[in-house]
Amino acid sequence: MCDPLRPSVRIPAVSAELLTRVRQIPPLTHCITNTVVTGFTANVLLAAGASPAMVDIVGEAGIFARLASGLLINLGTPTPEQRAASREAVAGANDAGTPWVLDPVAVGALPVRTALAGELVRLRPAAVRGNASEILALAGSGSGGRGVDALDDPDAALDAARSLATRFGAVVAVSGPVDLLTDGTRVIRVANGDALLTRVTGGGCALGALMAAFLGAARDTDADALEAVAAATLVYTLAAEHAARVADGPGSFAVGLLDALAGIDPTDIAAEARVEQHDAPVEEVAR
Amino acid sequence: MCDPLRPSVRIPAVSAELLTRVRQIPPLTHCITNTVVTGFTANVLLAAGASPAMVDIVGEAGIFARLASGLLINLGTPTPEQRAASREAVAGANDAGTPWVLDPVAVGALPVRTALAGELVRLRPAAVRGNASEILALAGSGSGGRGVDALDDPDAALDAARSLATRFGAVVAVSGPVDLLTDGTRVIRVANGDALLTRVTGGGCALGALMAAFLGAARDTDADALEAVAAATLVYTLAAEHAARVADGPGSFAVGLLDALAGIDPTDIAAEARVEQHDAPVEEVAR
Amino acid sequence: MCDPLRPSVRIPAVSAELLTRVRQIPPLTHCITNTVVTGFTANVLLAAGASPAMVDIVGEAGIFARLASGLLINLGTPTPEQRAASREAVAGANDAGTPWVLDPVAVGALPVRTALAGELVRLRPAAVRGNASEILALAGSGSGGRGVDALDDPDAALDAARSLATRFGAVVAVSGPVDLLTDGTRVIRVANGDALLTRVTGGGCALGALMAAFLGAARDTDADALEAVAAATLVYTLAAEHAARVADGPGSFAVGLLDALAGIDPTDIAAEARVEQHDAPVEEVAR
Repeated sequence: MCDPLRPSVRIPAVSAELLTRVRQIPPLTHCITNTVVTGFTANVLLAAGASPAMVDIVGEAGIFARLASGLLINLGTPTPEQRAASREAVAGANDAGTPWVLDPVAVGALPVRTALAGELVRLRPAAVRGNASEILALAGSGSGGRGVDALDDPDAALDAARSLATRFGAVVAVSGPVDLLTDGTRVIRVANGDALLTRVTGGGCALGALMAAFLGAARDTDADALEAVAAATLVYTLAAEHAARVADGPGSFAVGLLDALAGIDPTDIAAEARVEQHDAPVEEVAR
Repeated sequence: MCDPLRPSVRIPAVSAELLTRVRQIPPLTHCITNTVVTGFTANVLLAAGASPAMVDIVGEAGIFARLASGLLINLGTPTPEQRAASREAVAGANDAGTPWVLDPVAVGALPVRTALAGELVRLRPAAVRGNASEILALAGSGSGGRGVDALDDPDAALDAARSLATRFGAVVAVSGPVDLLTDGTRVIRVANGDALLTRVTGGGCALGALMAAFLGAARDTDADALEAVAAATLVYTLAAEHAARVADGPGSFAVGLLDALAGIDPTDIAAEARVEQHDAPVEEVAR
Repeated sequence: MCDPLRPSVRIPAVSAELLTRVRQIPPLTHCITNTVVTGFTANVLLAAGASPAMVDIVGEAGIFARLASGLLINLGTPTPEQRAASREAVAGANDAGTPWVLDPVAVGALPVRTALAGELVRLRPAAVRGNASEILALAGSGSGGRGVDALDDPDAALDAARSLATRFGAVVAVSGPVDLLTDGTRVIRVANGDALLTRVTGGGCALGALMAAFLGAARDTDADALEAVAAATLVYTLAAEHAARVADGPGSFAVGLLDALAGIDPTDIAAEARVEQHDAPVEEVAR
């Protein structure tokens, strides 16, 4: 980070508030996601207190997106049925004002999902989440990663993320050792987390679902989309730190992550958060 | 519970017998289930001693249902392929006398699965399993829940459950803090279990699969379908209690549930069971 | 084992080398696998150090198989989309020289997968992995198992395995209490492992994926396909032994298997390996 950022007080406070709301409401979180991570994603949402529902067929996805508090579209294994259901869900979500998250898994080298991601990103997702390679590819400035691997550092995707955010009016979240979040103007960096998250399948995908839950919980609050996405990131990466402390490897880490998400005390978040925020307009944020 | 029920001695005894049989046979349990819970469902069956097989494509599902000891049709993510395979499997099961369980996940608000559930329930499942919202919706007396969430207490679905049971000749199992099971005449309540089951995806879906395994194991015994379904419920909810005692949250609970299912001693079931049975005809069971 | 085999020094050494390479490269491992085990399979690959990618749709599978280090085709739940994607992936893999593994889950009784397995095995997989029933069925000498259950001892499938290996130029791996591996001439037996592997869904399927990763890592080394497949088997079954020592049942075993795979020290493999190799030509290996 070569530009001066200031520690954020606001994001930890919003995180505590939204986590509490997630547990109280709970937000019905509609996920159209890949077959590898469906179970883990649902368990992450349940552990955090949200209510997951994987409705990914034509004829139901649009209806459900209207009822849901938040929606995730994850392109990890986009069968023809899921592609059609995703279009239907996005239309329903936009019609009803349901905030939705686009996770363009492995875009770049793979043409079907790349075309679909390019189509969907124009339909005003509240947030786009990916690793640096994916964000670069979606912005048209990278060649794509190797599947779900990030070959690039999040900061290498900062310009691409801001460009995407500005063009499409979406928050863009770039996962990495330090997560980078931007709405095109403000930039938030969340330094919490643990490398074990990269050793569990769905470690990133489940965060996309949690963002959808937090966006849903943020409705009727004064937290905006960037703050809600940052709050989900902070809660999730903090839980990862808690889990890593007691894990013997990636298996027990994944189990512990669910326990930690369920156990995290909102009042403890501020003390452990490592979040910085820069509010300068885009052109002043030097790289 | 406002009607006088008596503690059941029979159900714990049947549970011990059928669990032992499941481990000995083991019953080949055919599952057509949703993509969220396939892995957990298979692991629950394996932990209990059964032999799972997820054969959910056209051209194979009907053949396999004829070979299987029991069949589960779970409508959680019913793709067109699964819908066709489910019809094929039910035809095969009915042709061969394989008992089958219908789990009408999230029926009510979602039209595709609601139509399919309405079609399948007429084809004489041995058992129907759902939460109160789903049973109410299937019986036509509710508006459906919010996806897989139960908004209603099992006892609120008692009339609907008895009506379904009588109309379709099926055992109806309503999941909740106290599980309610009926064949239209007898009513069994199983009070074992733990709230953590609602924090693990597939906590209910996997029970449907276990019911299919126990129905398979009950063939050639003097246990009837209601007793087999109650036995699966008792074994599963007892294992949940064991797991909850050592869990740190929903992640370790799900792991412990598998360990507990594999470790449960049939001779311990009677002492821990909290099961009541009412044998009055329908009209005498006041609400 | 009725023929004199000698303890292998070579396979443990290759195992240590290839495990180290998997962690260094890591090999991009393309999996088209069944919906029951996708998550566990990806987690096994990640724990071992490989990089999984489940690309199973038409229009992408062929492209990705060209980029990947290794490919798994597992026929556990072969939807029409997966069947077409599998053909596309195999064509891409063969075109680019990507080694690939065929896991003919439950072939025999089920016609769709049996036909597809018969078609694919002719397209020169580097390895075929199955239990004894599946290998017998694929070789045309058995009636098939009961789904994924092995009803036969691996040694009962020795002739079938050697016949398959010779006919199709593939390594054939037969899972069981003692894993049997052959290229038609050499026979390797790996006696490591634990019966808990049969109580976890995907216990065998994930090994097929690990074989693909090790085959990928073996490129540019002097290890051949039989050795790479044996190395994957040895690393996996050793990790299973480590996990079994601390497990309370199948749930904690599956978690511990991931931890053990991530934690296994290549320099410890030789001391714990129970591997024998017979190098006689086929006709000298008496049964």
